[in-house]
Amino acid sequence: MPLDTGRFLADLDTARRIGTYRTGVHRPTFSAEDMESRRWLAGRMAEAGLEATIDGIGNVFGRHPGPGPHLLAGSHIETQNHAGWLDGVLGVIGALELARAGLPVDVCAYADEEAHWGDFIGSRSLIGAFSDADIDAARNRHTGEPLRPKLEEVGLAGRPRITIDPTRYKGALEMHIEQGTQLENAGLRIGVVTGIVGIRQFRIIVTGQQDHTGGTTMRERKDAGLTAVRLLGMIDQEFPRVCAERSVWTTGRVALEPNAPMIIPGRAELVFSFRDLSSEVMDRMEDCLRRVVQESNRRERCPAVIEEIGRSEAALSDPAILAAFEGAAEALCPGAWQAMPSGAIHDSQILARVLPVGMLFVPSIGGISHHWAEDTKREDLVLGMAVLAEAARRLLA
Amino acid sequence: MPLDTGRFLADLDTARRIGTYRTGVHRPTFSAEDMESRRWLAGRMAEAGLEATIDGIGNVFGRHPGPGPHLLAGSHIETQNHAGWLDGVLGVIGALELARAGLPVDVCAYADEEAHWGDFIGSRSLIGAFSDADIDAARNRHTGEPLRPKLEEVGLAGRPRITIDPTRYKGALEMHIEQGTQLENAGLRIGVVTGIVGIRQFRIIVTGQQDHTGGTTMRERKDAGLTAVRLLGMIDQEFPRVCAERSVWTTGRVALEPNAPMIIPGRAELVFSFRDLSSEVMDRMEDCLRRVVQESNRRERCPAVIEEIGRSEAALSDPAILAAFEGAAEALCPGAWQAMPSGAIHDSQILARVLPVGMLFVPSIGGISHHWAEDTKREDLVLGMAVLAEAARRLLA
Repeated sequence: MPLDTGRFLADLDTARRIGTYRTGVHRPTFSAEDMESRRWLAGRMAEAGLEATIDGIGNVFGRHPGPGPHLLAGSHIETQNHAGWLDGVLGVIGALELARAGLPVDVCAYADEEAHWGDFIGSRSLIGAFSDADIDAARNRHTGEPLRPKLEEVGLAGRPRITIDPTRYKGALEMHIEQGTQLENAGLRIGVVTGIVGIRQFRIIVTGQQDHTGGTTMRERKDAGLTAVRLLGMIDQEFPRVCAERSVWTTGRVALEPNAPMIIPGRAELVFSFRDLSSEVMDRMEDCLRRVVQESNRRERCPAVIEEIGRSEAALSDPAILAAFEGAAEALCPGAWQAMPSGAIHDSQILARVLPVGMLFVPSIGGISHHWAEDTKREDLVLGMAVLAEAARRLLA
Repeated sequence: MPLDTGRFLADLDTARRIGTYRTGVHRPTFSAEDMESRRWLAGRMAEAGLEATIDGIGNVFGRHPGPGPHLLAGSHIETQNHAGWLDGVLGVIGALELARAGLPVDVCAYADEEAHWGDFIGSRSLIGAFSDADIDAARNRHTGEPLRPKLEEVGLAGRPRITIDPTRYKGALEMHIEQGTQLENAGLRIGVVTGIVGIRQFRIIVTGQQDHTGGTTMRERKDAGLTAVRLLGMIDQEFPRVCAERSVWTTGRVALEPNAPMIIPGRAELVFSFRDLSSEVMDRMEDCLRRVVQESNRRERCPAVIEEIGRSEAALSDPAILAAFEGAAEALCPGAWQAMPSGAIHDSQILARVLPVGMLFVPSIGGISHHWAEDTKREDLVLGMAVLAEAARRLLA
């Protein structure tokens, strides 16, 4: 059973017709279109000879019936709203093609990686880290609708949830679009993912005093916005001293109150986050951030308090899987690939808690993702499929 | 006819009962309560022997029937929403008391200083600087309701609008609450206003590129929020080099787009303003601001553009009026007064285009204004009234 990249592309094209939106798709988790795509996928798995199930959280699982050692491969099939045709489904159809090419691979579409209803509810359920109480607590991020009745509505209530036995697998593979421009800008066609970066996210609240801009002298003011600007300026100065080559840090949100032209801001809320592959580097960055806040509180009239609001650990790729991807990439596109971290989060990061993992990136045209204009050249899709298959063969050999 | 500060306080207490809100009042311009207060005021003016009129824009004007030389005195009678009991009406009742004390004073409550319907529509109308076309264009700032039908609704349509003859007056006086804490903090009871500061207001727009915080390296980013922080940091560094002792500058508004924690800001909008009494100082500050923007555009990847969105010239107090206030203050509360600029804007700034003007401040408890908790000690109100009257007598002597 040879690899059939034509069949792989044809399945991607078919999936694109379920929930089409312009040149992309709109398949939010548990929408009618999403459920249609899950049923279609289960059918394609069965045709490929896999034992196909849609489980009680929406994971579509195709179990390989033959002897091991096995690999687990997959990604997600739902999309962000009005988003791209490849984000997620590429890794699912790629995994399916591995099984169709005769490799002992279990295929999974992990439910809701795109976080319409929670954080990685599908992959967490699959490793036994999402309880019934978690289901009861989960709500739609946009509408607040509870998850439990939604599972009932889409016909998933009462179905067992699949959990994997890690000893069954040599590891888990995921192919995905890059969602950035590093490959494109470097003229490369394949990214071998060294790991998924960790993220630490903080809220910083600066408290000043709201006053009229005319009646209050500079000496009297407690301008929370100005303190926030100075604090962010210190971060801008200090973070380059402690970061690593690929670290990133971002102030995504600045909210002044009352944010009115003629009123001195009485309160400033900042949301600041940083990412790196190394916990040691992230510890240095966090230490730097806390020292900046401490120094701000020494210098300024407006006190700043810092609170951690999000933390995910980095997930490093397994060395053997990394070596298999690198060997396959160098064999199939010599000099046209690079090793790189994934700045975005993926199900592999959850699977890494129980399995060796590895990921492969294909370029995103213009770096666009989470938008219907997302695309990848067809020859890059085909190359990604070939590298994935070659790496799987090397791992199983 | 001696000055009667008891009558003055009693009138303030009466006005406080029209539109009472907690310990303050709610009399937005042309509300039922506002119109009631205007009719009440016109009645009190007539009782004082003034020729009282409510004109076609809502100005309540009491013309002194006797021979000159005359003074014009007044302030405003409407309030901000749910605001204080003295902001405005203090200067109106103070002016009325001057006339009742036998001084040749025309009294005016200039309509809508609190800008519910426009910028100084009453005082601008009074000096002939508010046209019928301006009335047609004016709308309520909060609701968008047009002014013209509102004037009809409250019974002002078709009434003539009064314009003053500047040659009738030696000058215009206004007593007002400080709306700040400078007098209170210095333990002083009277502020003699050297002038009303000018204001220049600018919008600065920084354009970057919205991207995922994970997938975009620091080298690739165009972070409009970061450029804005650096630009504001430069202002913070450079403005102290060009400002004067009482200059103030403020970034009241910062709006990032999309202002989402995990997205690099693609656009930042800042509203920045500064105030000073001296045009020369304000020219230096504006030049500094424009150089900061130019330097930002030299250093940064995200271009910044600057646009002037507001400009009012400073209005200096007339030297003779200033001397009269200073002499009266030193006579009545030696050592317990200071000369100071007004950081807030007032009708006197409009009148200054055609008349010599001067203002007197009494302390605001805790600096509170534009809030129902606004207050001033009764002995400070009485002292303010006495200084105002003594200064008027000196000017007319």
